[in-house]
Amino acid sequence: MKEKLDNQSHRRYNILTGEWILVSPHRTKRPWQGKTEESKAPQKATYDPGCYLCPGNERAGGEKNPNYKRPYTFVNDFSSLLPDIEEFDYKEGLLTAESERGICKVVCFSPDHSLTLPLMEVEDITEVIKTWKKEFQELSSHDFINYVQIFENKGAMMGCSNPHPHGQIWSQKSIPTEILKKSAKFKEYWEANQRSILADYLEQELEADERILEENEHFVALIPFWAVWPFEAMIIPKRHLQHIGELNESEEKAYAEILKKLTTKYDNLFKTSFPYSSGIHQAPTDGKDHPEWHFHMSFYPPLLRSATVKKFMVGYEMFAGPQRDITAEQAAKMLNELPEFHYLRQ
Amino acid sequence: MKEKLDNQSHRRYNILTGEWILVSPHRTKRPWQGKTEESKAPQKATYDPGCYLCPGNERAGGEKNPNYKRPYTFVNDFSSLLPDIEEFDYKEGLLTAESERGICKVVCFSPDHSLTLPLMEVEDITEVIKTWKKEFQELSSHDFINYVQIFENKGAMMGCSNPHPHGQIWSQKSIPTEILKKSAKFKEYWEANQRSILADYLEQELEADERILEENEHFVALIPFWAVWPFEAMIIPKRHLQHIGELNESEEKAYAEILKKLTTKYDNLFKTSFPYSSGIHQAPTDGKDHPEWHFHMSFYPPLLRSATVKKFMVGYEMFAGPQRDITAEQAAKMLNELPEFHYLRQ
Ligand SMILES: O=P(O)(O)O[C@H]1O[C@H](CO)[C@@H](O)[C@H](O)[C@H]1O
Ligand SMILES: O=P(O)(O)O[C@H]1O[C@H](CO)[C@@H](O)[C@H](O)[C@H]1O
Repeated sequence: MKEKLDNQSHRRYNILTGEWILVSPHRTKRPWQGKTEESKAPQKATYDPGCYLCPGNERAGGEKNPNYKRPYTFVNDFSSLLPDIEEFDYKEGLLTAESERGICKVVCFSPDHSLTLPLMEVEDITEVIKTWKKEFQELSSHDFINYVQIFENKGAMMGCSNPHPHGQIWSQKSIPTEILKKSAKFKEYWEANQRSILADYLEQELEADERILEENEHFVALIPFWAVWPFEAMIIPKRHLQHIGELNESEEKAYAEILKKLTTKYDNLFKTSFPYSSGIHQAPTDGKDHPEWHFHMSFYPPLLRSATVKKFMVGYEMFAGPQRDITAEQAAKMLNELPEFHYLRQ
Repeated sequence: MKEKLDNQSHRRYNILTGEWILVSPHRTKRPWQGKTEESKAPQKATYDPGCYLCPGNERAGGEKNPNYKRPYTFVNDFSSLLPDIEEFDYKEGLLTAESERGICKVVCFSPDHSLTLPLMEVEDITEVIKTWKKEFQELSSHDFINYVQIFENKGAMMGCSNPHPHGQIWSQKSIPTEILKKSAKFKEYWEANQRSILADYLEQELEADERILEENEHFVALIPFWAVWPFEAMIIPKRHLQHIGELNESEEKAYAEILKKLTTKYDNLFKTSFPYSSGIHQAPTDGKDHPEWHFHMSFYPPLLRSATVKKFMVGYEMFAGPQRDITAEQAAKMLNELPEFHYLRQ
């Protein structure tokens, strides 16, 4: 059976969304005559006078950043969601709309313009995690915030408009589509088994040991069986935590460690600062208890064959559903064969 | 109310998928320091000896293209789906997979390497539509083909590996995710009203006349109220057709006309060959009657502000749900203010 999954077209089921992904492992030999991306030399300057995220510099909105030394958070100058709006409902025949309230923040991971997560020290990444946790707690304390989406767009290829190491947090009143899907699946399993589906999945993956990338006392990084992006990965806490607000100190550190290890492997794969969007999926902050939820962080990196050839999610993928060529197992194998040390720090 | 939709953050409901999209019209003033794409000069040569789609040339698979004069179709040399496979089901704990059968084809729109749909004559586009129809009928006659996805990836930005005007058809046994979503919504409405939801929506849009781009005897092109991509558009037949197999001759021609008009507007917007993925959503070919389905074609173009600045669907969009800045009405207005003639043919 393993051989069939390795060689034949098949669909895999995502237990967290209830959706399928098409896998075409025989297609990896396809030639590439299409677009290649520029590969950028690594960022060198620790301070860039033109960067609106560097300490002391002026931002697009006119405000000045403090001389921050640890992770620094501020309200997005061009927030997609605003806290103070006039609420409304719009319904006219088949047209339906409603106002949406929220708060959008930016989190600078480090004052050093030249860094990225894999190049930061574990202690400094731990500070980023503590910041996410604090922001999560603060944002979720607002009555009108029912979901907090923490994410990072890394690299120009992922629409990141500034190389300074930073992520974003968009928090809002309604529960977003992707969270609704996962909530339904987590709930279904919880109601049937009184267990976290992700905890059970993690157990099975550790047993199989085919898609595991890293493991420490509190966390596991793996390529999910149903991965969509070529090197998509997931970081899962071993303890069944509903959200990052529940992390204890030793978990915060272990999380930082595994984040550094995973992103280092990523950079080493094509000897480039690996672009991705990462995001934390966790329980809604709607005031209810969510024993069904098990927080996790996912990485969706677009690169496929080299630092310049990416996988395009277009055409078939947009109109029908996701498709991939290399299997999850092949991707795990490639990442597991790489050195642990960052290629720029050897 | 219209003013609120024009100025405040809100969510709009997609009646065909049941999903919401976040609209942030106040955010259009955001500066852009991010990635810009190369803008390519228009393709000049009508024949390219290095192109594997040009008439008479050898393809990647080793076969030679005939000296075709009208649209030419062949089985994809690197098909993601194959008709002859050993079927299997895989189930191990929380891992579920199954084999997938299918047929993938390539459709060359024209022998002329330098053309694109907006630069082709209406008669020649009509031939493309007749080819789609014929392929749809042929593919759906196979017992194991339950859905036929016709699509085009246009432009390097959309992962198109060859500028020769062409599209693809992936047909398969299982019904893809996006079709399942739409099938459910079409059915819900049909069962409640014995009418096509898209026919009723079209009526309302023609009445409102705020998002209409083009109209002829048989077809309408519009920006849907719930558009995700900045200039996303939809072509809808006025007659309630389940699939393109039902097009009559005068509809084929009207379809070609509106396709040319819409894609010409697209090219004129930023005076560039406008990249997009387009696709036809239609009834499954599972042998059942689908009176609920109403076929339509959608265009998902990534450009946002110019020929080189695109909208990135990353981070928040990947982890939470789609987000846009300019409203559907603003996009329709911009397109409607453009000349009807192609900027290269004036
Ligand atoms: O088949 P092509 O044009 O080489 O490939 C393109 O279209 C396919 C179908 O949308 C996608 O899966 C590929 O990622 C994309 O690069
Ligand atoms: O906020 P930024 O970094 O300028 O913008 C980036 O991230 C946002 C959230 O994922 C996206 O909506 C934008 O399309 C992308 O360019």
